[in-house]
Amino acid sequence: MSAGVSTVIDVGRGHAARREHILDAAETCFIRNGFHRTTMLDLAKAAAMSAGNFYRYFSSKEAIVLGLAERKRERGIAMLGELEKSGDRRAAFFGILTRIFLDLTPEAAVLRLDIWSEATRNPAIAAMTESSEAETRAWFIDMFEALATSPDCDPPALYALVSHLLKGVIVDRALTPDFDPAAAVAQMLRLLEAGLGGRLPTSSDTTGTPS
Amino acid sequence: MSAGVSTVIDVGRGHAARREHILDAAETCFIRNGFHRTTMLDLAKAAAMSAGNFYRYFSSKEAIVLGLAERKRERGIAMLGELEKSGDRRAAFFGILTRIFLDLTPEAAVLRLDIWSEATRNPAIAAMTESSEAETRAWFIDMFEALATSPDCDPPALYALVSHLLKGVIVDRALTPDFDPAAAVAQMLRLLEAGLGGRLPTSSDTTGTPS
Repeated sequence: MSAGVSTVIDVGRGHAARREHILDAAETCFIRNGFHRTTMLDLAKAAAMSAGNFYRYFSSKEAIVLGLAERKRERGIAMLGELEKSGDRRAAFFGILTRIFLDLTPEAAVLRLDIWSEATRNPAIAAMTESSEAETRAWFIDMFEALATSPDCDPPALYALVSHLLKGVIVDRALTPDFDPAAAVAQMLRLLEAGLGGRLPTSSDTTGTPS
Repeated sequence: MSAGVSTVIDVGRGHAARREHILDAAETCFIRNGFHRTTMLDLAKAAAMSAGNFYRYFSSKEAIVLGLAERKRERGIAMLGELEKSGDRRAAFFGILTRIFLDLTPEAAVLRLDIWSEATRNPAIAAMTESSEAETRAWFIDMFEALATSPDCDPPALYALVSHLLKGVIVDRALTPDFDPAAAVAQMLRLLEAGLGGRLPTSSDTTGTPS
């Protein structure tokens, strides 16, 4: 490798590491102060950088939120990779859902509410939220198709249920001081298990439909 | 009745009517422009009042949000009264839930997201949200106890499910342009019916629990 190419790679690595550092600092800062009340100057300070240098990495709060979402997406794909390697796909899937619920701090739930609220009036954030929702939906439906233990399982209808439950749990986590994540995850897993077994009346044509 | 007392009552009526008028205008204004971007001056203009006169009725945006919540609460109590008079309590309850879902415009859902977001950093709004949540929970649990068709129905666990579903539906209504409220309400009513009949694995000790 020539010295020139190696230097370019080192600069690239330095840039990527600095971006990571900024995203970590920004996430902490958003969580502590709220999205709306955080300024670009606050974020530069949190990353221990001059404003001028900071703007070379991210031009707006919006660009940082998009960067955080992209990173979350990449981490999700990596977690999915581990899952695929695991022998018991069902146990791994339930394990990931449990981890998502139990790791959700009230502060992270508040940030999610802020970002949803922002998505209702910021087209770039709305587009990000929409594409992340579409990807999540496709992923869950694939998983339900793979894990269904009965032909009565209706993956799209089961996703509608699970998706509303997950969002409702995030709202409660943000607003309710004594919210119990363990009870919420246990209820969700029992419902999922029943849904995969075709024992939930999630769609109008499952056997679970009450007479 | 003396002329003096009658005048006081008329003034009281005028004041109440003017408050109603302000609340109607404020609700429209918040829905159109978002809670954060609406100023007290916008609200006074929307109510066709001078700022000075407007402040005699409400001293802050927060006071108006509390006024809107109190009015919603009173309307809920009135709706409950109608429900109690109705012969078929179950049909009336399902009818009210259906109406709540189908009447929820995307704009009203966005306002709800804004108010939740505000509750995470404004103690007065948080207290309002918390007391409204406690009241709603008690109301639903009473209703589930009255309507349960099986001893396996677990009203508090069923409320946890329904509450998360309702909140998740509000989030989706605010964020998803092609959201289908009719499908969401149909799924919710099927789940409720199964829950009242003890056929949902909502709690760890119902017969619906998968083996």
